[in-house]
Amino acid sequence: MSRFWSPIVETLTPYVPGEQPRIPGLVKLNTNEHPYPPSPRVGPAIAAAAESLNLYPDPTAAALRGTIAEVYGVAPEEVFVGNGSDEVLAIAFQALLKHDAPLLFPDITYSFYPVYCGLYGIAYREIPLDAALRVQVADFTGPCGGVVLPNPNAPTGIGLSRADIETLLRAHPDAVVLIDEAYVDFGGESAVPLVRDHANLLVVQTLSKSRALAGLRVGFAIGQAHLIEALVRVKDSFNSYPLDRLALAGAAAAIADTAWLEDNRARVVATREDLASALQSLGFEVLPSVANFLFVRHPDHAGDVLAAALRERAILVRRLGHPRIADYLRITIGTPEACGRLVEALRAILHR
Amino acid sequence: MSRFWSPIVETLTPYVPGEQPRIPGLVKLNTNEHPYPPSPRVGPAIAAAAESLNLYPDPTAAALRGTIAEVYGVAPEEVFVGNGSDEVLAIAFQALLKHDAPLLFPDITYSFYPVYCGLYGIAYREIPLDAALRVQVADFTGPCGGVVLPNPNAPTGIGLSRADIETLLRAHPDAVVLIDEAYVDFGGESAVPLVRDHANLLVVQTLSKSRALAGLRVGFAIGQAHLIEALVRVKDSFNSYPLDRLALAGAAAAIADTAWLEDNRARVVATREDLASALQSLGFEVLPSVANFLFVRHPDHAGDVLAAALRERAILVRRLGHPRIADYLRITIGTPEACGRLVEALRAILHR
Repeated sequence: MSRFWSPIVETLTPYVPGEQPRIPGLVKLNTNEHPYPPSPRVGPAIAAAAESLNLYPDPTAAALRGTIAEVYGVAPEEVFVGNGSDEVLAIAFQALLKHDAPLLFPDITYSFYPVYCGLYGIAYREIPLDAALRVQVADFTGPCGGVVLPNPNAPTGIGLSRADIETLLRAHPDAVVLIDEAYVDFGGESAVPLVRDHANLLVVQTLSKSRALAGLRVGFAIGQAHLIEALVRVKDSFNSYPLDRLALAGAAAAIADTAWLEDNRARVVATREDLASALQSLGFEVLPSVANFLFVRHPDHAGDVLAAALRERAILVRRLGHPRIADYLRITIGTPEACGRLVEALRAILHR
Repeated sequence: MSRFWSPIVETLTPYVPGEQPRIPGLVKLNTNEHPYPPSPRVGPAIAAAAESLNLYPDPTAAALRGTIAEVYGVAPEEVFVGNGSDEVLAIAFQALLKHDAPLLFPDITYSFYPVYCGLYGIAYREIPLDAALRVQVADFTGPCGGVVLPNPNAPTGIGLSRADIETLLRAHPDAVVLIDEAYVDFGGESAVPLVRDHANLLVVQTLSKSRALAGLRVGFAIGQAHLIEALVRVKDSFNSYPLDRLALAGAAAAIADTAWLEDNRARVVATREDLASALQSLGFEVLPSVANFLFVRHPDHAGDVLAAALRERAILVRRLGHPRIADYLRITIGTPEACGRLVEALRAILHR
């Protein structure tokens, strides 16, 4: 605390990302990164863009937005891009989700949502997941200034059907429903096809997970033009060029390579199913994930003890703070080799 | 306007950056970009970083902050980095400059400042430049929640001495004084050496101008740790990773190459002095610039007419909206060839 701070600063509880330690031989399964390099088109696109770094990027990101529009079957005016989906979400919270009535989101979900609310002074109400840690869209009732729902949810990995999303959109015709599809490419059902008929739908995606570009910081939103306009107005009141030339070029190359996406999400999904089986064989309860991670607990072993024992073996997994999920581990799907090391380590820990 | 917008959105007047048209053979002197490519160390650093784009960047940007700290003679805890100085400024406005008393800045200055105030609901008071368009620090009086001053000022290019800055710091010991040094490397006097003795000083710089990296989006702030902490808290409540891996690596390489900076700012300064003389020969009034641009007007020719005539000849310069400076043109220092084309075009326009 300092007398120079704006009053809001003292009240903030910043988000804490998963740790990024530098441990030799580390098996890093804690931040849901993709285990393989991105599309081979990305490197050359970045190298070409690096030739003109003395010039500003296009502040409207027209080329990248055009590529996204083409691949997703929407108009460029229905696409917004930002510095990772975290920035896109932040701008959406400020531009579309601050109203008198509270914002609704699950009690167990991406823990950045309440942080944005703190930053922008947005009232919110947490809707509890059911006993099986599933989102029940019927529970999202009552007056609200907006709804935020990840699909699949994090950290559970459980997906909702497009029909469920449509139910939610119809239940709140006067509020924006933001569907955070950070993990949708690993088996979820995207709400993008609903944009045409639903003026209140904003879908947010990221290149950090399924496109293996966590290091490039690109996310996007798809929604009708009147919603996108609000995002653009806030962005242009904050930072004209949040995407540098390299990110713009690399992202467009990655989005255009749809074959790479198909191949590499299939690899991750196959590894996920193998890992789920192996963990179940060890006695773990494994939530039905359609994401690139598993959310698991063992009936006989506390989550903190397991995580610490894995860490001793240079294997990082993530634990989240909420008391309802204290015994769960969130495990990123790595390469088959990394997942094999995890399973071996868990076997040793459980049987020691 | 849409019923879904947060109420603030309707009230915003977004910043409009200089245009980035794609005209063949264009002489682009409108956005203060550096005319030469960046340090040759930047490309290889980016290529190396592109090898691990599937992994998140370091959210604390420790390596880049360490390099900046070393080059500028401060501690890493006294350095904050962001996505261009625009993002650094936005975060500083939100974190340090929102108080009951109004923020003070010049009436003619970087036109993003009032935009940030609109976005964050910050009251402000504009302090008029004197008749010669100079900042008079003695005019920055009265109760205030902070002071923002570019040095050199934009779009005038006129610099203040370090002694002037120190006077301002002493006049407002309980308010943050933010010195925006976007253009300081072209002949200004930096306030960084004052950080040690002044708890209320925050200095903001960018790599977009003197380091020729407008396309990479990296800016930084230097101030005592208690001020930096406020910026970090807001940043970590907004976006964990605003700098991608490529920007972190390229920026560190550029900052470390101090010899490149010396050489290339000298080139720009030499061209500036030549251009100033040439324009004076044509009858232009040229403000005394220590930046990488000139702010000029002709006693017999209106600014809009000159700008339009230059544009017809595929030469872009910038005009700013304020009525006090309606007849001025802001001209970026390009290569000697680009500046030569500008002078020839102006000669033709003036004598037609």
